[in-house]
Amino acid sequence: MSDILYLMPGKGAAKEEKLRREKIANTFLTSEKNRVFVDDVDEGPLSIESSIEGDLSVHGMLKKAILTKGKYDALIIGCADDPGLFSMRELLDIPVIGPFESSIAMASMIGEKFSVITILESGFPETRMILRKYGAEQKCASIRAINCCVEDMIQQKVSRDEVIDIFIRQAKLAESDGASSLILGCMTMAFLLLEEAVQEKISSIVINPAKVSVKMAEMMASMGLKHSVLSYPKPDFEKLKNSVLPELKNLERGK
Amino acid sequence: MSDILYLMPGKGAAKEEKLRREKIANTFLTSEKNRVFVDDVDEGPLSIESSIEGDLSVHGMLKKAILTKGKYDALIIGCADDPGLFSMRELLDIPVIGPFESSIAMASMIGEKFSVITILESGFPETRMILRKYGAEQKCASIRAINCCVEDMIQQKVSRDEVIDIFIRQAKLAESDGASSLILGCMTMAFLLLEEAVQEKISSIVINPAKVSVKMAEMMASMGLKHSVLSYPKPDFEKLKNSVLPELKNLERGK
Amino acid sequence: MSDILYLMPGKGAAKEEKLRREKIANTFLTSEKNRVFVDDVDEGPLSIESSIEGDLSVHGMLKKAILTKGKYDALIIGCADDPGLFSMRELLDIPVIGPFESSIAMASMIGEKFSVITILESGFPETRMILRKYGAEQKCASIRAINCCVEDMIQQKVSRDEVIDIFIRQAKLAESDGASSLILGCMTMAFLLLEEAVQEKISSIVINPAKVSVKMAEMMASMGLKHSVLSYPKPDFEKLKNSVLPELKNLERGK
Amino acid sequence: MSDILYLMPGKGAAKEEKLRREKIANTFLTSEKNRVFVDDVDEGPLSIESSIEGDLSVHGMLKKAILTKGKYDALIIGCADDPGLFSMRELLDIPVIGPFESSIAMASMIGEKFSVITILESGFPETRMILRKYGAEQKCASIRAINCCVEDMIQQKVSRDEVIDIFIRQAKLAESDGASSLILGCMTMAFLLLEEAVQEKISSIVINPAKVSVKMAEMMASMGLKHSVLSYPKPDFEKLKNSVLPELKNLERGK
Amino acid sequence: MSDILYLMPGKGAAKEEKLRREKIANTFLTSEKNRVFVDDVDEGPLSIESSIEGDLSVHGMLKKAILTKGKYDALIIGCADDPGLFSMRELLDIPVIGPFESSIAMASMIGEKFSVITILESGFPETRMILRKYGAEQKCASIRAINCCVEDMIQQKVSRDEVIDIFIRQAKLAESDGASSLILGCMTMAFLLLEEAVQEKISSIVINPAKVSVKMAEMMASMGLKHSVLSYPKPDFEKLKNSVLPELKNLERGK
Amino acid sequence: MSDILYLMPGKGAAKEEKLRREKIANTFLTSEKNRVFVDDVDEGPLSIESSIEGDLSVHGMLKKAILTKGKYDALIIGCADDPGLFSMRELLDIPVIGPFESSIAMASMIGEKFSVITILESGFPETRMILRKYGAEQKCASIRAINCCVEDMIQQKVSRDEVIDIFIRQAKLAESDGASSLILGCMTMAFLLLEEAVQEKISSIVINPAKVSVKMAEMMASMGLKHSVLSYPKPDFEKLKNSVLPELKNLERGK
Repeated sequence: MSDILYLMPGKGAAKEEKLRREKIANTFLTSEKNRVFVDDVDEGPLSIESSIEGDLSVHGMLKKAILTKGKYDALIIGCADDPGLFSMRELLDIPVIGPFESSIAMASMIGEKFSVITILESGFPETRMILRKYGAEQKCASIRAINCCVEDMIQQKVSRDEVIDIFIRQAKLAESDGASSLILGCMTMAFLLLEEAVQEKISSIVINPAKVSVKMAEMMASMGLKHSVLSYPKPDFEKLKNSVLPELKNLERGK
Repeated sequence: MSDILYLMPGKGAAKEEKLRREKIANTFLTSEKNRVFVDDVDEGPLSIESSIEGDLSVHGMLKKAILTKGKYDALIIGCADDPGLFSMRELLDIPVIGPFESSIAMASMIGEKFSVITILESGFPETRMILRKYGAEQKCASIRAINCCVEDMIQQKVSRDEVIDIFIRQAKLAESDGASSLILGCMTMAFLLLEEAVQEKISSIVINPAKVSVKMAEMMASMGLKHSVLSYPKPDFEKLKNSVLPELKNLERGK
Repeated sequence: MSDILYLMPGKGAAKEEKLRREKIANTFLTSEKNRVFVDDVDEGPLSIESSIEGDLSVHGMLKKAILTKGKYDALIIGCADDPGLFSMRELLDIPVIGPFESSIAMASMIGEKFSVITILESGFPETRMILRKYGAEQKCASIRAINCCVEDMIQQKVSRDEVIDIFIRQAKLAESDGASSLILGCMTMAFLLLEEAVQEKISSIVINPAKVSVKMAEMMASMGLKHSVLSYPKPDFEKLKNSVLPELKNLERGK
Repeated sequence: MSDILYLMPGKGAAKEEKLRREKIANTFLTSEKNRVFVDDVDEGPLSIESSIEGDLSVHGMLKKAILTKGKYDALIIGCADDPGLFSMRELLDIPVIGPFESSIAMASMIGEKFSVITILESGFPETRMILRKYGAEQKCASIRAINCCVEDMIQQKVSRDEVIDIFIRQAKLAESDGASSLILGCMTMAFLLLEEAVQEKISSIVINPAKVSVKMAEMMASMGLKHSVLSYPKPDFEKLKNSVLPELKNLERGK
Repeated sequence: MSDILYLMPGKGAAKEEKLRREKIANTFLTSEKNRVFVDDVDEGPLSIESSIEGDLSVHGMLKKAILTKGKYDALIIGCADDPGLFSMRELLDIPVIGPFESSIAMASMIGEKFSVITILESGFPETRMILRKYGAEQKCASIRAINCCVEDMIQQKVSRDEVIDIFIRQAKLAESDGASSLILGCMTMAFLLLEEAVQEKISSIVINPAKVSVKMAEMMASMGLKHSVLSYPKPDFEKLKNSVLPELKNLERGK
Repeated sequence: MSDILYLMPGKGAAKEEKLRREKIANTFLTSEKNRVFVDDVDEGPLSIESSIEGDLSVHGMLKKAILTKGKYDALIIGCADDPGLFSMRELLDIPVIGPFESSIAMASMIGEKFSVITILESGFPETRMILRKYGAEQKCASIRAINCCVEDMIQQKVSRDEVIDIFIRQAKLAESDGASSLILGCMTMAFLLLEEAVQEKISSIVINPAKVSVKMAEMMASMGLKHSVLSYPKPDFEKLKNSVLPELKNLERGK
């Protein structure tokens, strides 16, 4: 009986893609009574591949969160960089799930260290920064990239079999770096369900952040658990209302 | 459709207590299709309050796990010290859940640091050792005790209200130690559902390891995720069969 | 011969206050040939006291940085939380100085550990998060607050002498926490030149982030040193131009 | 005048092998007045090559320790994984020496970092777990294996010269990992006195855990030093007596 | 208006070399009003390439510091190992700058991690020891050497172009180790202004410790900042005067 | 059959005090065949209570070590700050024992964390620096002082009973800081055999660095173990001979 919003922080995703992800995300649920809704924002980057795009995605997400206030029992930030996680937790009283944060939590129950396998090497500094922010640097064996851009995968310029081959090669390198599990570093990889194609061929366990974040959202909502105000203190909503978030005027505190 | 075994590592729990815990544990499930079965072992300590009792609880659990092989989709070690977690993972191909390990994972999604609030101070060194083993020492703000033994709580020598008062006092000290969440350090506290009585009165979030471990078991079973052989390598079963675990003779590998 | 922009990330600072800060900032320079210009942004929070306000201050700063492109040799982010530091470094090829980051660097040459003394306790989680992001957590002895809001100081509701008394009390506590230096955690405190009033009365060394950041900007500009693309990779400017930063159309790469 | 028990945690060692080890162990003593006695247990694994075998070796050792109570001045756990170290320290008031723990202590006086060179790669996760438990992970440069099983060495299927060649190759790799010393990761290697054959050919210092543990036992016994109850608290002996360790009935506290 | 002493800890530098360095060092200044004076000591090693030479350089520096008391506003220890940094800070009330310590501070504003590129591998343990002393080990990606001795460089046995080639090769290896900046590990390399020849050819930023230390000296002198007595307590000068530092008799406390 | 030199780094100890210490030190030996010789140096500080005195003690010790070359099988640096440990190890091929380093090694076998209890608070920064140098900071629970100077103890201005009372009070505070063992932070305290008077009254274990260093010297000498050249590389003796250590001319390499 929990409704979960999977909020894509960028704008401009095709409607079909949102529906495709929504359909897949609903298969991730543990309980049939829960539902996942996939939505994106009115304002923000095309995709998040830099710190700039991460920062500029927050406004759109905050506005959407204010608009949909009271409708959802948990919210997932639909990007493997967890942009705006801290700000969204300051704003909201429902569980806010970061796919990367929850994948790291899952990894801790699977083995000693994890690696992140992502699309492009240019994202490594951002990933390292997030790991430091989460105090999880010591648990990360390595960050590796398949160096094969999303477009090429989607447009089949690189075949699925080729992607799988590249991934397996990187997975084995990550294992020799000390990884017992592998976190997919990008939601496009996650919604390709890459783990299903490769798990049998490697010894480490592949963690799909889309799957994990849906399940964690469900779990936290059903337990009544959420982030603590001691780590995410409530801001001065009056001040925000009169400056950067006039949308708050429509929002009554609560939920 | 997952059957979960919650295995109490000590022997001699009263049948009513096992039924009471089973009943409660089933209320923790996210999906109605899943079930939790509470059982204990034929051989082991009365309760686990020392490293000796932890070590001597493993044999009984391994034997039970062999006997019930193929019947369950996940197994929870029913003690907040997670005794035998590594050995059980070497033995089994289903997810093996440690309530403390999974509570630490949950805590990472709730705030920066957690404290453990447990029964007795004599357990602090063991708890610190486990935290080091898990690489989680940096995330622990403090370990604190209510110094009020289980017997006295159960027999009402100390009233529930008094326990709650003591707990709240320790909780506030833990918050000033830097904790954003509080992990209950003992399954008896967990099955008293202490968090329900105190959550409203404190700022930190109380994590119930019984609740979290049931939900994590459910989640991992449904995702097909389990611990990695790279961190928990398969032992030489032939050798074990001929020495310390003759029960393995009845076991065919698999599941 | 370096022109330095001290960019206040919030909007709405009174013109007199900007002039006052500019006047003071110019007294911080090591070389008479350099100049500091204080400016604020067209869009952003009134002040930065939450993660939300930090995130929502970035857009305004990026736009201003694009508009003033080529005019300055270094840019200081005028807030002790260093909001947008990573994004500004992705955008710009001139040194971008974070007052907190540079104060931590200064502290490393003064003694073993530093404390941060700031205005309000509600800012502690954000400060801790930045320390983790910078990998500087181990060097921080404690974070402490004077718990006396900026408004009250400015409007003299709390006298300067009272503020000094409170500060000295917190400073001594920080020393017993292990601090050899004290970083002022807020630019308002910095532009009050609080260190001049208290330094003689305490053993630890007070670090003024406004002063340090001006000097570091000067130093880096004159040495031709700046942040490395290996930690702050260049984003895809074409993509940014067509989405979140159309202002980039007016910008020719370079400088 | 100290009698030291070197207790092999597995059962089934040939009498000759025990005598051979006892003879060698006595050559390790610093003082002629002391003596080492080598014994094994009545119940336990053939050898310890998994966490399961480690856990299941503890009962046998505890029983032997109770039986021989008062006869010895120090006890060495005769396995390089230090199984049951915590439990044995809870039980006993004489020094309990872990060969691995004492080798790490020795390594700290020889150089910056050590590597462990052991028999098989399958033991790496257990070794890493122990390092974390001891808080010694940062001092370990690497873990390496000669990948040549004990049986083959003993039965000369692999000649001593070949073993030495393999060891030297791994030793040089460990040096390039940053090791200044090398801890032998298995007591069979230790009682082959491998260090005598290789020390001249490498720059790092080989640490023999059998030798070090005998000397540390001697030293601690003669100083009257032993483990602290603050880290290894005394368990409730009455409770143990009535459950997992009925043998305690024969034991009077003391020594 | 600050006079800065750059004190070479070894004796026997040719007068021309001192003048050459002084001339170069003065070009590093931010303000024209400041001056750098290069001097060496009457007693000490020819150069510092071992811990012994580092320790034995301190007496000479302390004596010179006493002799020149009151003449300078800041003092730079002219060696990339910062010998005697702690002792000089105990003695002096003016800022004492360690080129390595200040380069590490600079590196923290340039990127995530630095590497040290030095002359010879035999200096690595000393460098690692200093990094641990400074609590900066985690920020160091690697230490690398050009393995080409100072003499050969100076006497042109290895051409400048060859040195540059070797350096660039090591720089690229350091980048793959994770370095965003490179600290020159030797003052001879620093006064060759090597960074000017290589910066354009690599992605990481080269940090010249001579340049940085001059600028930091200037900055600290102009700010009135210096090391804290809480980390560098004042010794008992009477006792020193009557034992190891009779020169102190000529010194009146102050400055 | 090992002769051990206990070398006091300061000059001017009364002959009776040296004889008293020698007599006591010989009671610390494990084997009757070994002997300890206590000596001091011709040049150096009266005692070591600052970094300056530590640095200026090294020359005297190096000279004495050269002079006595070949006479001893191990050398103990007779000061709880281990001055010159690195330099002495560069010079010598026999084991060089630091009392503090070896006490930390001993502490690792006694419990989780140690505290240092020393004479004066002014020595805390030096002690912390050494702990960082040794990579042992994490194992130190706290540093505490009895704040009662050596002179007053020796001259009985403070009675032995009073010293014991003060020590016990600090010991209990250290235990509440998390210490399982207490390292005496000064050799004068060590040769007062303070542990014998207090051990029965506290739960933590007192470690006497004089005792431990004698036993470790004996152990290392008898095992043929010494520090590794990979951490303490051999310096250029020719160069040293011609500059800071002309005494080396009398020394033939070896031993």
